[in-house]
Amino acid sequence: MTTAERADVLSEALPYIRRFYKKTVIVKYGGSAMQDGEIRRDAISDIVLLSLVGVRVVVVHGGGPEINAALRRMGIEPRFADGLRYTDEETMDVVQMVLCGKTGKDLAGLISSMGGKAVSLSGLDGSMLMAKRLGPGDYGLVGEITAVDTAPIDMALDNGYIPVVSTVAQGADGAAAYNINADTAAAELAAALGAEKLILLTDVRGLCADPDDDTTLLRQVSIGDIPGLVKNGVVRGGMLPKIDCCVHAVRRGVKRVHILDGRIPHAILIEMLTDAGIGTMILP
Amino acid sequence: MTTAERADVLSEALPYIRRFYKKTVIVKYGGSAMQDGEIRRDAISDIVLLSLVGVRVVVVHGGGPEINAALRRMGIEPRFADGLRYTDEETMDVVQMVLCGKTGKDLAGLISSMGGKAVSLSGLDGSMLMAKRLGPGDYGLVGEITAVDTAPIDMALDNGYIPVVSTVAQGADGAAAYNINADTAAAELAAALGAEKLILLTDVRGLCADPDDDTTLLRQVSIGDIPGLVKNGVVRGGMLPKIDCCVHAVRRGVKRVHILDGRIPHAILIEMLTDAGIGTMILP
Amino acid sequence: MTTAERADVLSEALPYIRRFYKKTVIVKYGGSAMQDGEIRRDAISDIVLLSLVGVRVVVVHGGGPEINAALRRMGIEPRFADGLRYTDEETMDVVQMVLCGKTGKDLAGLISSMGGKAVSLSGLDGSMLMAKRLGPGDYGLVGEITAVDTAPIDMALDNGYIPVVSTVAQGADGAAAYNINADTAAAELAAALGAEKLILLTDVRGLCADPDDDTTLLRQVSIGDIPGLVKNGVVRGGMLPKIDCCVHAVRRGVKRVHILDGRIPHAILIEMLTDAGIGTMILP
Amino acid sequence: MTTAERADVLSEALPYIRRFYKKTVIVKYGGSAMQDGEIRRDAISDIVLLSLVGVRVVVVHGGGPEINAALRRMGIEPRFADGLRYTDEETMDVVQMVLCGKTGKDLAGLISSMGGKAVSLSGLDGSMLMAKRLGPGDYGLVGEITAVDTAPIDMALDNGYIPVVSTVAQGADGAAAYNINADTAAAELAAALGAEKLILLTDVRGLCADPDDDTTLLRQVSIGDIPGLVKNGVVRGGMLPKIDCCVHAVRRGVKRVHILDGRIPHAILIEMLTDAGIGTMILP
Amino acid sequence: MTTAERADVLSEALPYIRRFYKKTVIVKYGGSAMQDGEIRRDAISDIVLLSLVGVRVVVVHGGGPEINAALRRMGIEPRFADGLRYTDEETMDVVQMVLCGKTGKDLAGLISSMGGKAVSLSGLDGSMLMAKRLGPGDYGLVGEITAVDTAPIDMALDNGYIPVVSTVAQGADGAAAYNINADTAAAELAAALGAEKLILLTDVRGLCADPDDDTTLLRQVSIGDIPGLVKNGVVRGGMLPKIDCCVHAVRRGVKRVHILDGRIPHAILIEMLTDAGIGTMILP
Amino acid sequence: MTTAERADVLSEALPYIRRFYKKTVIVKYGGSAMQDGEIRRDAISDIVLLSLVGVRVVVVHGGGPEINAALRRMGIEPRFADGLRYTDEETMDVVQMVLCGKTGKDLAGLISSMGGKAVSLSGLDGSMLMAKRLGPGDYGLVGEITAVDTAPIDMALDNGYIPVVSTVAQGADGAAAYNINADTAAAELAAALGAEKLILLTDVRGLCADPDDDTTLLRQVSIGDIPGLVKNGVVRGGMLPKIDCCVHAVRRGVKRVHILDGRIPHAILIEMLTDAGIGTMILP
Repeated sequence: MTTAERADVLSEALPYIRRFYKKTVIVKYGGSAMQDGEIRRDAISDIVLLSLVGVRVVVVHGGGPEINAALRRMGIEPRFADGLRYTDEETMDVVQMVLCGKTGKDLAGLISSMGGKAVSLSGLDGSMLMAKRLGPGDYGLVGEITAVDTAPIDMALDNGYIPVVSTVAQGADGAAAYNINADTAAAELAAALGAEKLILLTDVRGLCADPDDDTTLLRQVSIGDIPGLVKNGVVRGGMLPKIDCCVHAVRRGVKRVHILDGRIPHAILIEMLTDAGIGTMILP
Repeated sequence: MTTAERADVLSEALPYIRRFYKKTVIVKYGGSAMQDGEIRRDAISDIVLLSLVGVRVVVVHGGGPEINAALRRMGIEPRFADGLRYTDEETMDVVQMVLCGKTGKDLAGLISSMGGKAVSLSGLDGSMLMAKRLGPGDYGLVGEITAVDTAPIDMALDNGYIPVVSTVAQGADGAAAYNINADTAAAELAAALGAEKLILLTDVRGLCADPDDDTTLLRQVSIGDIPGLVKNGVVRGGMLPKIDCCVHAVRRGVKRVHILDGRIPHAILIEMLTDAGIGTMILP
Repeated sequence: MTTAERADVLSEALPYIRRFYKKTVIVKYGGSAMQDGEIRRDAISDIVLLSLVGVRVVVVHGGGPEINAALRRMGIEPRFADGLRYTDEETMDVVQMVLCGKTGKDLAGLISSMGGKAVSLSGLDGSMLMAKRLGPGDYGLVGEITAVDTAPIDMALDNGYIPVVSTVAQGADGAAAYNINADTAAAELAAALGAEKLILLTDVRGLCADPDDDTTLLRQVSIGDIPGLVKNGVVRGGMLPKIDCCVHAVRRGVKRVHILDGRIPHAILIEMLTDAGIGTMILP
Repeated sequence: MTTAERADVLSEALPYIRRFYKKTVIVKYGGSAMQDGEIRRDAISDIVLLSLVGVRVVVVHGGGPEINAALRRMGIEPRFADGLRYTDEETMDVVQMVLCGKTGKDLAGLISSMGGKAVSLSGLDGSMLMAKRLGPGDYGLVGEITAVDTAPIDMALDNGYIPVVSTVAQGADGAAAYNINADTAAAELAAALGAEKLILLTDVRGLCADPDDDTTLLRQVSIGDIPGLVKNGVVRGGMLPKIDCCVHAVRRGVKRVHILDGRIPHAILIEMLTDAGIGTMILP
Repeated sequence: MTTAERADVLSEALPYIRRFYKKTVIVKYGGSAMQDGEIRRDAISDIVLLSLVGVRVVVVHGGGPEINAALRRMGIEPRFADGLRYTDEETMDVVQMVLCGKTGKDLAGLISSMGGKAVSLSGLDGSMLMAKRLGPGDYGLVGEITAVDTAPIDMALDNGYIPVVSTVAQGADGAAAYNINADTAAAELAAALGAEKLILLTDVRGLCADPDDDTTLLRQVSIGDIPGLVKNGVVRGGMLPKIDCCVHAVRRGVKRVHILDGRIPHAILIEMLTDAGIGTMILP
Repeated sequence: MTTAERADVLSEALPYIRRFYKKTVIVKYGGSAMQDGEIRRDAISDIVLLSLVGVRVVVVHGGGPEINAALRRMGIEPRFADGLRYTDEETMDVVQMVLCGKTGKDLAGLISSMGGKAVSLSGLDGSMLMAKRLGPGDYGLVGEITAVDTAPIDMALDNGYIPVVSTVAQGADGAAAYNINADTAAAELAAALGAEKLILLTDVRGLCADPDDDTTLLRQVSIGDIPGLVKNGVVRGGMLPKIDCCVHAVRRGVKRVHILDGRIPHAILIEMLTDAGIGTMILP
């Protein structure tokens, strides 16, 4: 790279850094970006770097594979219904222990080892996430968020910590704990925090006009276009509930939602600090 | 009770409430006070009430029985050496998941259900507790605290939350996590926070001149008296490491350490807000 | 008393202490609670204790017997009209000297000797109470309050002092000073301060369904019930103007007014910090 | 006066106003400036005007003639010993009532009627002045100051009030109240407040080389010169204890003490805001 | 002058000083007050003294004679059209260099040499004054103000500096700089700052009923009277645009505008701090 | 450029951005970077971008060619002695008008047109730079700085403005103004502000082991190496006084001084935000 090229990258990035200063960005962290060693370090590095320059980054993590492994270790076979984990009481205990006690804390430790500062929180801390039983189907202790109290998150951000959120909620109905879908929780938190951006790290390139051809990536989609895209089959399968979360977040005031390919190294940095962008941006 | 008696209790309590306003008190919470339903609610109620009137209460919890149960659920037999849990990597994972993911979060939820506000934190959050491998014996991943950063605790207290601390530490030597004895961690935190009081909830009446006769309870003991008490056998067995923690805390500036019988309902309130006192107080 | 009983009293009291923290409570102090040695110390002790735990207590005092004594010492016979002291200029001078120079300052001194901090203020300080001549009858320099400036009271409370108010007002019409009824002044101050409570210490048990039988005490009365109680003769004689003050205060936003028997030791503490209550509470 | 002359006065005054901004000035107010109608209004006007432009003015008042009148009204003959009022218990009550209940409150009212804001305080308020029995002679309840807590004064000044201090002190030895000489109290307060100036309003022109000839006024005297002036008879009689107060104040850090002729209209304003000066200034 | 006269001047001035404390006063400084040595020092002294006692004084200066001299030094003959300086590019450079680089900086230096603190600013600093080309006539780079950002002025005042404003504006239309009439700029700044007063220092006595007879000075004129005064010829010639500025400022909320004779020594102090006043005051 | 390359540049830059956040950096701006259109815009763009991300950038400018042009326009031939401009009174006026009235204001305007905010200040504003006549040689009104008051600079930075400093000083000896060498002024300001960096934009590549061969650039030089470099002829000619300034600044606490080639586009950004660096860095 020439110095001129370097200068171009920097000149382009600085106004973005300025724009995002003290703004809140939610990163839903999961999939390859969470499993693969090298990619994982790149993603955490991006989060730490953004935090360094004053972006209020909140990490919301999933943990399906780890939960499955722990359940099996205890001789319990994971069950799913309508794409959701069927969560009986015994499973709920394992979900809570893995997400809050293992995945979240390990992420906090990893952030710390890369020079950041993090605290791992769950919906049970400070009654941050309240939920009731999701219906009408029967999914056991899978919950639907009924209230969000952002105070613990704000406290962490105001004190310079990156909050790492495990998506277990407190029962508004007396239940000790509910298992919450991480995409949904990320969208609810983004809305409650008045976030500038919600970034969903996934294992796909984004929305593609031809879902089987990455080169047809749609750079920018208005939520008004979504029904048409669903009809055309551009949005389908596992992407459907994700897109619902995106639309919900945008409707509730989040300025931009990004579906990013977590397999691309430093996807977050590229998306946020360059003109190019690399995934699909969903906006009002 | 007559109104005069009630007035006496209140007149006695108010100056204590004043004295402890904005002062830090560490409660090491374990044993019966943690296992038994009714007693458990009384203890948590005391903690919430003290927090209500402005005491900065920090809860440090243990969790031996829960860890043993989880290990056995996974087909691992708990091992101990010199009274410490031998902690191999697999065990460490379970310790972390149970303490951080289950016991701590459940305590936070219980506090919340009784009108308080709590966040559950561990030594991995904000690198609060740093540790190295305990020696010279081999106890696996049992750690010895090398540094305490009280910032996450102060942040929680300043924002009106009761911090509930799970005693897992981050490795100062690169290890992901260490298992820390809860009494030791409570004493270290009390010292680092410049606490007014450290209260150890136990399953004994306190130090007794005749350890087999509760009526010989020693109300007040100076740390200078401890060596003699050890020699006489007044302090013996499982009480020896506890007393070491007490002496350590007092030497590092904690004003008063209390060994309380957690089986007595509302032991904390009685000890802190009445002239009587019910356990053994250790002071410089 | 058992420790369990003590714990009950404390568990009951702490939420009240929390509720009244930084709230304003006006105590109209007079009658037996002011004359009798032991009772007097108990009442002042209650006021100091409440102040210790953060209640913003304001004391408004009377002083009829002391004024009468001073007048007689100077060879002036006290005169009354319609239950009010007829106040000529010479009497006004004595009223002012006794209330502001003796009773108020002595109360401040007594509070100080019991560990509290007090400043004695009158309506002449910072033009706190402005008044005009009361009519239509002729009572000389008896005044009717026309304006209240709570700044001197707020200043005292904000700096940790218990304000002790002597009820002499500045003339809005050029008169140097007016003599104000203490119950009325207490009610006006309570309204102006947006007080949580106004407590009138009296020499009766409260309002009783049968005024001659203390066991028929009415624990709680809505101001809507008052006209009926007057009609029935439950409220009569010297209680009539007191009840007027209570109703006036409640209408102007004071949440609760209490008529307490100042002869009961620690009546204030019992009323404020126990579920029982011992007098009559008047509410909207 | 020409506009040029007016401009000169103003140009001269403004730097003084700047210099005294937020500085503390104690005015010992007594004698003619307190008794004579017109002069009295001029003096109070000066105090209000200085307060308007940000000087922290504290008024300390005497009241001998009023006390004598009240004593006689009650059939008690005033007694003096060594130039001090012999104060038995009955006299003490009258002193307190007159100073705290009448003179102080009337001054506060007068200040208020001239557009200022004042609160009248005594040594009994907030335990501002603590005293013990003066000795070795027997003067009854005449006190000697043992401690000054300036908090009530600072509170009043910080809130925009002119504190008017009545010189009755609380007994450090259990006595309810002591009678304090006003010059002494003013000097002690000036020292405790770190005052810029102490102004003693008197009925003489100042210190004069020939005490019988006002034209020999000494404009400026160093405390080192005082012993010589006493020896020469320049300082004599009633001026001796006043000068002791001045020297004491200067030694304890008060920058300038002024002996001013309270009979000159607006003596305070002239002394503080013009180059000329009109009394004797005592400095280190 | 007698001390009584001095006291009168001071008693009169202090309430004004209080009234103007922290209030903003714009002084348009030009004419004799700027050219003549002695008068110049008196005017600057007034400004420094007012600043000393807390008035937020802003100086807006002209500089016609200095500009003419510099132009001639460069061999350029000054041109005027409709009473305005015709400003071609070359002239604009000279105007900017003289006003911003010489007159403004020299005034700042003079203020500093007299004990004040000043910073010299222009409309180019912080884009304080934005302008477009004045029309419809052709005056070259003479500008008409389109926006005022008072931030640089507020910053200077808040930090204890007297802002000295040179009236060159930044082009809202891309032009580097515009030349702005100083009276107009002073009026716009007064309006934008919500000034208490705008003082125009001129070389005339004020508005006079008979413009040729100074003794017919109009002390006070309402803006409603202006049209009549124009019709009668009381306002005429060079006074017409000045009066337009005054009316504009009053309409936009400036409380008082004063036309003062800058040839009178200390005109500003006399006008602001005495009851008399010496020029014409224009008010709503 | 690939996204990976972009990510590398950003990952490298972000820690620098963090490190320089709220740190002070002085840019001595002159030579080609100031004369050439494109380069000039790049340099100003760098300054604005750094300011955007929180660096406290101070610009100190020269202006030799502009001064020469203005002098010649007035028929004055520029004179030099020992490499310094001989500054008689007439020249001083021109220097002041050009630097303060033209160059500085134009830079402020240029910064503003590129999205930044600037105020142009000189040593005459707030008595920021005080100077005496430089000796022992005779250079007329060339000054030597005797005192620096950074308050005007701090005020500007704290309010979000980039201060642009014209190097004219106020005479500590009564002289109205002194002409100060811009490199010297920049070094003095850097020292007084406790700057993190002083960047001298020049027209050379930096210090080169062989001054005639840019490829022998010395990346990093300790001030201890300078005497040797002078001896070897590496530092010579016009670079000698520049290096003196650098050494002086480092000795007085400036952490790093950079000699940068202002002809390289975006030299400032490359030097500050990449690992590479492009000029010579001088450090303790």
